[in-house]
Amino acid sequence: MSSSPSPPLSLSSLSGLSEESFVAAVGGVYENSPWVASAVFTNLKPLSITSIASLHAAMKEVVETAEERKKLELINSHPDLAGKAALADELTEESKEEQSKAGLNSLTKEELEQFTKMNEKYKSKFGFVFILAVRNATKYTILKSFEARLKNTRMKEFEECITQIHKIAWMRLLTILEPADTGFLTCHVLDTASGKPANDMDITLERLSGTGPLGVIGSFVTNSDGRLTSGRALTGKDFSVGIYKWTFEVGDYFAKEGAKLAGTPFLTSVPLVFGIDDPEDHYHVPLLCSPYGYSTYRGS
Amino acid sequence: MSSSPSPPLSLSSLSGLSEESFVAAVGGVYENSPWVASAVFTNLKPLSITSIASLHAAMKEVVETAEERKKLELINSHPDLAGKAALADELTEESKEEQSKAGLNSLTKEELEQFTKMNEKYKSKFGFVFILAVRNATKYTILKSFEARLKNTRMKEFEECITQIHKIAWMRLLTILEPADTGFLTCHVLDTASGKPANDMDITLERLSGTGPLGVIGSFVTNSDGRLTSGRALTGKDFSVGIYKWTFEVGDYFAKEGAKLAGTPFLTSVPLVFGIDDPEDHYHVPLLCSPYGYSTYRGS
Amino acid sequence: MSSSPSPPLSLSSLSGLSEESFVAAVGGVYENSPWVASAVFTNLKPLSITSIASLHAAMKEVVETAEERKKLELINSHPDLAGKAALADELTEESKEEQSKAGLNSLTKEELEQFTKMNEKYKSKFGFVFILAVRNATKYTILKSFEARLKNTRMKEFEECITQIHKIAWMRLLTILEPADTGFLTCHVLDTASGKPANDMDITLERLSGTGPLGVIGSFVTNSDGRLTSGRALTGKDFSVGIYKWTFEVGDYFAKEGAKLAGTPFLTSVPLVFGIDDPEDHYHVPLLCSPYGYSTYRGS
Amino acid sequence: MSSSPSPPLSLSSLSGLSEESFVAAVGGVYENSPWVASAVFTNLKPLSITSIASLHAAMKEVVETAEERKKLELINSHPDLAGKAALADELTEESKEEQSKAGLNSLTKEELEQFTKMNEKYKSKFGFVFILAVRNATKYTILKSFEARLKNTRMKEFEECITQIHKIAWMRLLTILEPADTGFLTCHVLDTASGKPANDMDITLERLSGTGPLGVIGSFVTNSDGRLTSGRALTGKDFSVGIYKWTFEVGDYFAKEGAKLAGTPFLTSVPLVFGIDDPEDHYHVPLLCSPYGYSTYRGS
Repeated sequence: MSSSPSPPLSLSSLSGLSEESFVAAVGGVYENSPWVASAVFTNLKPLSITSIASLHAAMKEVVETAEERKKLELINSHPDLAGKAALADELTEESKEEQSKAGLNSLTKEELEQFTKMNEKYKSKFGFVFILAVRNATKYTILKSFEARLKNTRMKEFEECITQIHKIAWMRLLTILEPADTGFLTCHVLDTASGKPANDMDITLERLSGTGPLGVIGSFVTNSDGRLTSGRALTGKDFSVGIYKWTFEVGDYFAKEGAKLAGTPFLTSVPLVFGIDDPEDHYHVPLLCSPYGYSTYRGS
Repeated sequence: MSSSPSPPLSLSSLSGLSEESFVAAVGGVYENSPWVASAVFTNLKPLSITSIASLHAAMKEVVETAEERKKLELINSHPDLAGKAALADELTEESKEEQSKAGLNSLTKEELEQFTKMNEKYKSKFGFVFILAVRNATKYTILKSFEARLKNTRMKEFEECITQIHKIAWMRLLTILEPADTGFLTCHVLDTASGKPANDMDITLERLSGTGPLGVIGSFVTNSDGRLTSGRALTGKDFSVGIYKWTFEVGDYFAKEGAKLAGTPFLTSVPLVFGIDDPEDHYHVPLLCSPYGYSTYRGS
Repeated sequence: MSSSPSPPLSLSSLSGLSEESFVAAVGGVYENSPWVASAVFTNLKPLSITSIASLHAAMKEVVETAEERKKLELINSHPDLAGKAALADELTEESKEEQSKAGLNSLTKEELEQFTKMNEKYKSKFGFVFILAVRNATKYTILKSFEARLKNTRMKEFEECITQIHKIAWMRLLTILEPADTGFLTCHVLDTASGKPANDMDITLERLSGTGPLGVIGSFVTNSDGRLTSGRALTGKDFSVGIYKWTFEVGDYFAKEGAKLAGTPFLTSVPLVFGIDDPEDHYHVPLLCSPYGYSTYRGS
Repeated sequence: MSSSPSPPLSLSSLSGLSEESFVAAVGGVYENSPWVASAVFTNLKPLSITSIASLHAAMKEVVETAEERKKLELINSHPDLAGKAALADELTEESKEEQSKAGLNSLTKEELEQFTKMNEKYKSKFGFVFILAVRNATKYTILKSFEARLKNTRMKEFEECITQIHKIAWMRLLTILEPADTGFLTCHVLDTASGKPANDMDITLERLSGTGPLGVIGSFVTNSDGRLTSGRALTGKDFSVGIYKWTFEVGDYFAKEGAKLAGTPFLTSVPLVFGIDDPEDHYHVPLLCSPYGYSTYRGS
């Protein structure tokens, strides 16, 4: 992504593009490997892309079915993390932004040395560069990950690098393209102590990071079915990639229900923090609770 | 509790007391009903109290086995919530502090009227006053609770009031006495995707409210058994009544484990907010997690 | 219920009945207390009953709002469990059948004595008879329950007896009336290790007890949404009161998914045994599973 | 394993062996690849093996650190599943027994053709044979697995075959050696509706398959800590590889606790079926339950 980012492209605008323009638009998604976009252009002709997910799947397929030699080339098209290319300012715009988001452009001298040493150790063991999707990572996580992965076999690492590359491509597509309008967020609260939906529970929703206004972005009350009276908590552009937080007023609910609660109840305001990665998908993030325990999961 | 509260008494200091002093010390725990403490003094003689919980249990037993007439008297020894006694400043010190903590001393005129109406409706239906342990409640919760309980039968409400009175007594004992040194907090993290303890996960512990310093009060790393290397997260005076929060670095953990995570993982930092009500008890508050869901409960 | 039970009545056939016939039809549901049915007839006039649940709710309401004296009378209309009335063959048909289902008509002399002693102890403590809905209970459970409840206060036991009486009434209604055609059973399987619906998992459904053929009554495969391709697993008359069992082929599923399983996997065929109490309601009984753990709950 | 299997060897008896005898004893664990056992003999010298798990880990390490060429050789040392070698009776004893346990020695002509076609397809795509630990599998599972894995990349399949080979080796070691006496089974029942251990719940344990008597092998009652009064449910030789089943009398427990249950409760007898794969390990298989839901997991 350039330092003055262009506004995201609509999916429909991709349809009319020539191969050259298409590759110009999305070719950078796989680092220094425009051949992936080219192959997609050929495979999908006539180009009709209805979701970022389907474009990503098509690009991924091209990579997965490529020869091992080609995959190795793809891996080695990536720069070292915090490596020489970064120091010499020779990174692609995309890599530059990603490495800087993870704080890799402001390492101390000691940290730089540590990264250099790790990169070398990794390359000498496996014969290719270490790849990690760093956009949401910290220096600390990256180093821990480095250590853990150095213990793998070459084959496992090869696979892992390809997996990370797909993840990087996904995140790059999300910054370039406007997602289809299909994603939304729903909720459900079940009272497992009485085996019925939790009626009349207050819930708030906050965006902790991501696209759109941060802070409280919704206040809800459950209906007799344990669902939000409004149905969907987020839709359209509001349903964006980021970190979100439900807060469920479980203590008040059980107090009203006449549950035998302690003076200081075990559960009062229950927070659930969860990430939305795919803005085109349905995320169902429910709460199953009793006065002394709860669980949640990513449903759909 | 008086407005300039005395320091809490040790449990051992209760042992030598005369009936009169004992009743002076803990007799206010059941509102205007020193006969409860008197009976305990007689029942337990010679007085040897090793925990707040055992004293509370002894007092509760006295109430539970009393005649219904006596219980009704006990219920009616309580003031209305936000009632005339409060306006006339005729509350016991304990009730005054509790009602003020719940914001009942600063109601608007409309709210006061609402409370007055509710109190009357309740009394005319059931023949006794509405009782709710309000120390940790808000105006809003109290009103919701009022509404819900007005639908009960008289018998159910009689039982409920006694339950609330025991809860009030418990919280009053906690402000008067120094708890025995038996309580502590432990944790355990299980990775349910791989069926093994989660090793090397970072955890922090915060006190959000309660006795003792607020904010981060502990940082931990799990060992190969999924437990804190230090064993107990809180013991002694640090293990106090209040609201606490674990934060589990679940995202980092699964990244190191090589789980197939999204660019923005579903779980990153997982917060668990829980209350400690009994400072003499063992609280085990574990996390069972996979990359896409988790559960917790109050164990021991 | 008589020894040669009449076929269940349809709900619509209740509508045209005179008070006398209505009370003849459902008056025995509250033991020796036709006044409950009479009051319902008056309250609901003109009679239009669309579900067993709504009739039960109306009858329950009559009892709940009756005076305590009347409730006590209702309690004392019940015979002792395994008491003199049973020996003298003086039970109502309903009680006779229920007590016999729990094995109370074939007690040994020692057991009879134990029951007699318990009944007397209970009556002398509380002033009314011990009531327990015994249709699905065993001698063993009944005795355990007896012991536990003898420790309660009179008020709590009074409430508990009324609760048990409502439960008895519910089960009697279910044997007399044909339920409305609104109930059904659904399922959902979520793979919490990968955060997606479990696709292509084999499931069987058995009826272990209850109305209708026992044994395997359905075989299903989940679709890409983790639900049964047929939608509802049971509807109409097939969705009857009883004990049911799902068996989920979790081991095969995770093997296909390429999960790292042990030689003898922790989970292979996962059984869930659950009861259906209300044939007019929606039961959603899902499975949330990873290779090393699972949970379920009663949803709707 | 030979058709008249020798009694399992003790771990201590391995210590004194010459390389030749050691390889004779455990060399067949990796199919036609005695070099793995040889390398372990050299690496571990002097030989002191205290658990099957540690021997397996040592053998696995030898394979993992071998060159890819060597790993490919190992993969190709395995016969086709239901292939020509089987027809010509040229399998190793170990493979013969495993394939027969999965029913592969009694395929119909059509099934044989299907297997032959799959094997060929697989080999022509990846350049090596399809490997699956079949001891606990069925024809059906094997075919499903075949289909799923044909979609993988060569690298992923290479890794998968090695994983399956380690699993086969583990199961073969378990038939040859007597496990160390360190494994045991524990249980815990938590009542999440009331946030306390479930006291006085009846539990039975059955062995459904595996070494030792089948059927009910233990009856337990939980103590006030929710654990078995006897502590461990299985230890020593009784704690053997196999499929087990807990049955928890959850319905009786909640009835005694005075939970508001339906006439036909949602939960009555709750079965948990689980596999024990490692007889030297601690398996903790708990139940977290409320009247309307429960969960379990493999703990330790």
